[in-house]
Amino acid sequence: MKNNKPFILVTNDDGIGAPGINFLAKAMQKVGEVIVVAPDSEKSAVGHAITLTDPIRVMNYDKNGLWHGYSVSGTPSDCVKIAVGALLERRPDLVISGINLGSNAGINVIYSGTVSAATEGTILGISSIAISLTTFTDPIFEPAADFAIKIARLVLAKGLPERTLLNINVPNVPFAQIRGVRITRQGMANFAELFDKRIDPRNRVYYWMDGKKAELAEGEDVDDVVIRENLISITPVKYDLTNYDFIPELNKWIPEIEKI
Amino acid sequence: MKNNKPFILVTNDDGIGAPGINFLAKAMQKVGEVIVVAPDSEKSAVGHAITLTDPIRVMNYDKNGLWHGYSVSGTPSDCVKIAVGALLERRPDLVISGINLGSNAGINVIYSGTVSAATEGTILGISSIAISLTTFTDPIFEPAADFAIKIARLVLAKGLPERTLLNINVPNVPFAQIRGVRITRQGMANFAELFDKRIDPRNRVYYWMDGKKAELAEGEDVDDVVIRENLISITPVKYDLTNYDFIPELNKWIPEIEKI
Repeated sequence: MKNNKPFILVTNDDGIGAPGINFLAKAMQKVGEVIVVAPDSEKSAVGHAITLTDPIRVMNYDKNGLWHGYSVSGTPSDCVKIAVGALLERRPDLVISGINLGSNAGINVIYSGTVSAATEGTILGISSIAISLTTFTDPIFEPAADFAIKIARLVLAKGLPERTLLNINVPNVPFAQIRGVRITRQGMANFAELFDKRIDPRNRVYYWMDGKKAELAEGEDVDDVVIRENLISITPVKYDLTNYDFIPELNKWIPEIEKI
Repeated sequence: MKNNKPFILVTNDDGIGAPGINFLAKAMQKVGEVIVVAPDSEKSAVGHAITLTDPIRVMNYDKNGLWHGYSVSGTPSDCVKIAVGALLERRPDLVISGINLGSNAGINVIYSGTVSAATEGTILGISSIAISLTTFTDPIFEPAADFAIKIARLVLAKGLPERTLLNINVPNVPFAQIRGVRITRQGMANFAELFDKRIDPRNRVYYWMDGKKAELAEGEDVDDVVIRENLISITPVKYDLTNYDFIPELNKWIPEIEKI
């Protein structure tokens, strides 16, 4: 008997034991057949790292009979690669990554393991979504999980353009306080970085990276701005990094390069 | 006495002891004052990872009196962040990352630690360059080092657009065989991934990630294509990942999201 339900690969960067992936996996069971392949421990801010120099371990994982899958000793990108390349018997129809603790908006998009997993799905030709909650503490997962169901159904029905995923950020407020949905662009507010210099018990210097994202007066259509106003942000993210606008100018440099 | 020489931060992802960074640091000494801040060990394919959950260690490093700097227990992005945020007494005029072993063209751009270091420089508002050699074995560094001098001088003289770095790939051939320079776009040929499944001495399964990049018949203006023809490739890379073209269509989805 053919299984006509959509096959959904759920992953994240907070690790397979994180509460957000549990909410997401249970939500996705309302949309299709779910398999979870996620890192065995927290892999936040790993960017688009892949594991080439170490072996990758895979363990069966069962969430109290609620859902099952595999934990992987690697990054979110590794999880999607090994799921599609080695672990799964059929190709997923959708990759969805989250629900992340902490927004993945603005400059954070390029550091995000959550987004990188969805990027990897897109690279493999599978419609992909990243979904994050704008808090590290006291998460309210239900609105994000509910929204994930809606957007997953839409993406499965409509598809996405080549090389493009959806990066979604949901404000951490109860349903009633969510004011709506906006399509956004990636904001560009930088971090004001602080390196906290300390001395360890053996008198050696070490540093903690810390920082606070600047709240720029960016446009009304920017991810970081929208989520501060209790709106759900959807940014279409494309992984072609070429700055096409600068190519004509750079072409003028070539004679100068050659004469130096 | 004011120091008017450009101040150049040199980094990489192959580690501070790698031969490529030695060639690059010595080349940059012909352009300005050089400081090297690089990972204490190989950090290839780490993407845009940053270290938030571990302390970061920094050690003084001296390359036999040829150049000096710091080795960092972190990723290439960490190196640039901590150099600018904590270690250096003045702001660099240029960040240059390399000379990497292995091309960083096409889809590899998003996995590349070499490129991520240059991206980090760009985020911090500093003109930045990534430079890679198209080989893992038997490197011929001299043409890339020579080209790094030319392009560093040009970038220092002309600047770069906001949020844009130059990603350079140099064919691994002697000077005489390099046919010229081309301005390119990021190619999109995917990897054909293979997971090599093995059993360890304790009878546990593990995997090695392996793969070969497809050689697509992409355009003449594509990074991967150009380097196969013994041309130096320069791609302007921008880290705004928004797919602007898809925003109007996505806006049409909102009423449907709201009615589901």
